[in-house]
Amino acid sequence: MTSIGVGLIGTGYMGKAHALAWNGVRPVFGDGPRPRLVHLAEVSAELAARRADEFGFERSTGDWRALIADPEVEVVSVTTPNAFHAEMAIAALEAGKHVWCEKPMAVALGDAERMAAAARASGRVTALGYNYIQNPVIRHIRTLLSEGTIGEVNHVRFEMDEDFMADPEALFYWKSEASSGYGALDDFGVHPLSLMQFLFGGVARVMAQLSMPYADRPDRAGGRRRVETWDIASVLLELRGGASGVMALNRSAWGRKGRIAMQIFGSRGTIAYDQERFNEFQLYTASDRPTEQGFRTVLTAPVHEPYDRFIPAPGHGLGFNDLKIIECHELLRAIGGERDAQIVDFDGGLDIERAVHAMAQSHREGRWVEI
Amino acid sequence: MTSIGVGLIGTGYMGKAHALAWNGVRPVFGDGPRPRLVHLAEVSAELAARRADEFGFERSTGDWRALIADPEVEVVSVTTPNAFHAEMAIAALEAGKHVWCEKPMAVALGDAERMAAAARASGRVTALGYNYIQNPVIRHIRTLLSEGTIGEVNHVRFEMDEDFMADPEALFYWKSEASSGYGALDDFGVHPLSLMQFLFGGVARVMAQLSMPYADRPDRAGGRRRVETWDIASVLLELRGGASGVMALNRSAWGRKGRIAMQIFGSRGTIAYDQERFNEFQLYTASDRPTEQGFRTVLTAPVHEPYDRFIPAPGHGLGFNDLKIIECHELLRAIGGERDAQIVDFDGGLDIERAVHAMAQSHREGRWVEI
Amino acid sequence: MTSIGVGLIGTGYMGKAHALAWNGVRPVFGDGPRPRLVHLAEVSAELAARRADEFGFERSTGDWRALIADPEVEVVSVTTPNAFHAEMAIAALEAGKHVWCEKPMAVALGDAERMAAAARASGRVTALGYNYIQNPVIRHIRTLLSEGTIGEVNHVRFEMDEDFMADPEALFYWKSEASSGYGALDDFGVHPLSLMQFLFGGVARVMAQLSMPYADRPDRAGGRRRVETWDIASVLLELRGGASGVMALNRSAWGRKGRIAMQIFGSRGTIAYDQERFNEFQLYTASDRPTEQGFRTVLTAPVHEPYDRFIPAPGHGLGFNDLKIIECHELLRAIGGERDAQIVDFDGGLDIERAVHAMAQSHREGRWVEI
Amino acid sequence: MTSIGVGLIGTGYMGKAHALAWNGVRPVFGDGPRPRLVHLAEVSAELAARRADEFGFERSTGDWRALIADPEVEVVSVTTPNAFHAEMAIAALEAGKHVWCEKPMAVALGDAERMAAAARASGRVTALGYNYIQNPVIRHIRTLLSEGTIGEVNHVRFEMDEDFMADPEALFYWKSEASSGYGALDDFGVHPLSLMQFLFGGVARVMAQLSMPYADRPDRAGGRRRVETWDIASVLLELRGGASGVMALNRSAWGRKGRIAMQIFGSRGTIAYDQERFNEFQLYTASDRPTEQGFRTVLTAPVHEPYDRFIPAPGHGLGFNDLKIIECHELLRAIGGERDAQIVDFDGGLDIERAVHAMAQSHREGRWVEI
Repeated sequence: MTSIGVGLIGTGYMGKAHALAWNGVRPVFGDGPRPRLVHLAEVSAELAARRADEFGFERSTGDWRALIADPEVEVVSVTTPNAFHAEMAIAALEAGKHVWCEKPMAVALGDAERMAAAARASGRVTALGYNYIQNPVIRHIRTLLSEGTIGEVNHVRFEMDEDFMADPEALFYWKSEASSGYGALDDFGVHPLSLMQFLFGGVARVMAQLSMPYADRPDRAGGRRRVETWDIASVLLELRGGASGVMALNRSAWGRKGRIAMQIFGSRGTIAYDQERFNEFQLYTASDRPTEQGFRTVLTAPVHEPYDRFIPAPGHGLGFNDLKIIECHELLRAIGGERDAQIVDFDGGLDIERAVHAMAQSHREGRWVEI
Repeated sequence: MTSIGVGLIGTGYMGKAHALAWNGVRPVFGDGPRPRLVHLAEVSAELAARRADEFGFERSTGDWRALIADPEVEVVSVTTPNAFHAEMAIAALEAGKHVWCEKPMAVALGDAERMAAAARASGRVTALGYNYIQNPVIRHIRTLLSEGTIGEVNHVRFEMDEDFMADPEALFYWKSEASSGYGALDDFGVHPLSLMQFLFGGVARVMAQLSMPYADRPDRAGGRRRVETWDIASVLLELRGGASGVMALNRSAWGRKGRIAMQIFGSRGTIAYDQERFNEFQLYTASDRPTEQGFRTVLTAPVHEPYDRFIPAPGHGLGFNDLKIIECHELLRAIGGERDAQIVDFDGGLDIERAVHAMAQSHREGRWVEI
Repeated sequence: MTSIGVGLIGTGYMGKAHALAWNGVRPVFGDGPRPRLVHLAEVSAELAARRADEFGFERSTGDWRALIADPEVEVVSVTTPNAFHAEMAIAALEAGKHVWCEKPMAVALGDAERMAAAARASGRVTALGYNYIQNPVIRHIRTLLSEGTIGEVNHVRFEMDEDFMADPEALFYWKSEASSGYGALDDFGVHPLSLMQFLFGGVARVMAQLSMPYADRPDRAGGRRRVETWDIASVLLELRGGASGVMALNRSAWGRKGRIAMQIFGSRGTIAYDQERFNEFQLYTASDRPTEQGFRTVLTAPVHEPYDRFIPAPGHGLGFNDLKIIECHELLRAIGGERDAQIVDFDGGLDIERAVHAMAQSHREGRWVEI
Repeated sequence: MTSIGVGLIGTGYMGKAHALAWNGVRPVFGDGPRPRLVHLAEVSAELAARRADEFGFERSTGDWRALIADPEVEVVSVTTPNAFHAEMAIAALEAGKHVWCEKPMAVALGDAERMAAAARASGRVTALGYNYIQNPVIRHIRTLLSEGTIGEVNHVRFEMDEDFMADPEALFYWKSEASSGYGALDDFGVHPLSLMQFLFGGVARVMAQLSMPYADRPDRAGGRRRVETWDIASVLLELRGGASGVMALNRSAWGRKGRIAMQIFGSRGTIAYDQERFNEFQLYTASDRPTEQGFRTVLTAPVHEPYDRFIPAPGHGLGFNDLKIIECHELLRAIGGERDAQIVDFDGGLDIERAVHAMAQSHREGRWVEI
């Protein structure tokens, strides 16, 4: 058994998820190198030390460059705000580290392009945090599609909705600033796009409409500030395989907490899925007897890999953080040279970014845009 | 108590639904004029006689013009194939009859315009068979919207899906011919459009994409025939009130049998509904306590008018045909001069047709079209 | 075509349902004798006249015995409160009429026995209003069971819950009086029992526990009055076929509006159903591929007889009143001499009553009771 | 920060779950002592060594007594087959270790009594693996009950169903031997009983019926062997608080994978829950406006402690293994002397065992049994 030295930059939402994954991946899978939690960086040395203690890292720093310079660090988790991804990821790659970077790649398309170039130049493994593709359900859906269970796919619908921006009287914060990006399009759209890439090879052309549910929001000074991002996005699209599709995004959707719903229509059946119940999917096949045809609700089970690595009994349910453990395992498999590791690398991520920016362009110009 | 003389043209799917409504409306509601089932027309005198016997009509004919000429007929149900609607409805109006015509109004926009003109000229009541707006659930949703229960609506999503065209090996039939219309757009789109008109005042502009799941289908001669209609339609739209929206239609959607799903997002909550379970709707309001916020499934009950006219106990369920009885009752109320009768008249129907044709134009031209 | 003279006694909840069925049965089914609505009886001549006008009956009376004496009446609908069923049904049978009586048969077991005896003596057709067995879904479940789709049934669970007695501060009324019966046991229990009879041939032995959620309720005088009936009943049972089972009843179940849920477990699969969504059922079969096994939600469709008589398209939904139309049609088929008519006659009803009274005895004696 | 030395006996289904919990508890919660994974025991030294390497334990042994004798081990996870629990747990307690033992306590009631006595004598902390009570949803339901959100509870229904014994042609194995216990009663019943204890203080009296779906099963010799356990159990019960209830268990329930469904009826509302979707629950309260009353589906969120320790966003879902991490944290809190730690200790476990054995007695004697 070998080990691999891990560095973690950032310990917020995703930083903790990475930390949990690094702690859990070997006990769950029982194979691959043992992660050695070497170095943790945060915005202050004090916070870094506290988190290192909690997460089990050997040392810590308030200067992320020190982490990247650490020769014992072989792979770096970048989980800082999106604006920092490019600088950190490129520095890590240039220092010869593998990089596990949270999504989306970057705010500016140019940054994403530089990241992809750096990855290619480095020869190192890169992975973006598109953890939803790691769900055993999603993997099994891909198997079903490749087996032709629902025939040839001719139409898809994707929705992603949450409600953290739904309250019109919530204070203005950085997600409403233009500097953060377009809004729902990059904040959310990248997730369905990662699924479309994983399941269908990506998107060929798009026609988008961005909209703002609220023109302004209260600011801390007691006034109102104009919103600069679009919390809602609606997109017509064509998949690379030729199927038509719709993608609808809304981060002001009261009541939706983690909805990523998809419907995949084929010539012999239909598949439906909702991330809010991500341990199950719906399948309808035209091959059932007519009097008993219906959508069946299939619960995840050990027969859906790698569910069995977590639980030997069916229907007991993985959690969101478990998806990150699977992603971490795929990253380690890629680092170990396994060709079939299922990750979105920086080239894949760039393809997603291009789709996002094409959608924004389509909205501005009121016409279809090719990717 | 007065009575009203009824004529029925056509006894297929919708013809039978009209017949059931004419039989049931007075026992259910216990008010208004008693329908007197005077005259029934079918393609042959024999079939007409048989159906008249079954449905309880006094006399029958193989010539629909005889029915329209019958002085005892005061209101005419037109339930023939769409291509005949204009001719029959206009003849009936010109003969001084009220007209209850099935949807959609007509295949050609010009026909719809002539029908609306004839209706205005006649001074008679017209109603189109947009029965989904008659559902007590839909009416209650309109009440909730007007009360502001979910605040200001900023985004909507409509889907309508069935699977009667889903089998690629089903024989080519007239629904795949260009003469039948655009396909899903007019066949299905008019239903969500009727709901958008009823709930939000209609649609202001559209951007549509039509697609064909199957390029050809087997014909009776053993060969393949090119499909000329689009079974799938995806539309971006803006409601007259300013909210953005998506409408997705698919009559090749395996497993969907009568799905008309809608999601209405507002500044204080969300409403969701699916016609496949049309005795219930989902409501989420931001005013519930945070620890117990969730979509509640509300079952129809006597408090949702006019459910109580059918059943005095909650949660026992209306049927599809019951919606037609409510529609019939609204028609009778309109004929009786009641201003608040909730029907889609020929002017309203023309507005829906215009939206359909604008969508088709948008598809052809790849750009947004105003209505 | 022949006709049949109909008399209706009572026009409350079930009386109206019968009236709608008598009006709708021939337009829906298009066969059998035409119901001629001859005579309607209510508690007063005035109310009777009004309802006769609404429901389309030729004449009316405030004296139900006049209706029974009417020679043009051939079949009598008895829809009055339970305490009157025996007297009216027996009188009708003795007058040579067929009888369609609402459930339950009677409050006292002796009355039910007398009714069954009168039915046998009369040679006339009797039918009790156990309309849930008429649901195309339930009929199809019976077909699936007989085909062995889920193998041999070894366990069942039935629940029936509503909430009209759930409010502890609702005024005391007759349903809390001992004279009305046991409570949930006879008020609700007869429905699941009718389904068990229809699907499995009935119940062999029972062990019951009755309970009172509220010991007293407010009365009109401003005081409290002791409740004398049990709103909750829980029963262990054994079906005649040998399978074990549970039946749980609660008419104080907040939120349940018309729940009659059943789960049928067999050696090769499971069927689940809930009356609150009575246009669908759930089927799981062990014969599906392991990776896609799941409960499928089957929507009613024309392939589930006699749904097609109402609607030619699948998934569009029957209503509660439609079940009564099917029941009426079965009654007419039985009157017409068709042996396979699916009704619960007075002998069948007596079997259900015996099970109810055995449950009450079991509760009193704290032991299993055979039926 | 202190540490605590951990020993793990057994590495099957639950052994791995304990290992994951010991690895994850501190990264997730960030408080308490750091678990030091000292010693792991398995049936062979080889397997022990492999698992120690996978799970990160310092040393391993094929002799569990060596683990218990290890002075660096302060708390012992006992995850071996049920028959070994008593011997190992008692030995560990006598050696001064805290014990985290999987459920059920023991096969024989006498063993459970000895375990409880040993726990009391030792002064050490004991916890049984009733992890379902650790679900933030279940904890929140307890809060709702104590707040009176649904008023006074008057009736409950619990179901637990899986299908690992559903195939009648699956080979006979030890779960069908009498030496393994009663069958569903102890295998499953303890879980609902743990929930009833946690939510309602336990069960006062019971009336049970055990049944066998299959009398025999194929054995390896090609013959059939008589089944000695009951895969199905149905129980009437009375909670200590006085409410009536039903508990239904079935480990031959095709299609159920991890169902633990409960319905709690109160004087002001109803709560429903199903472990197969354990990140949500259903709440109906009579205080909503009548026209919008319905069961609301509440998704788990950071407001439901300790969900927030895992994920800061609502509706993203915990997994089955996460419940074990929470249980581990409660155990550590108890060891740390915190009085409000929520665990089922050996006294609590004994109470559950007594209920199980009372049910078995009730079945044998056909009468109610007090606990």
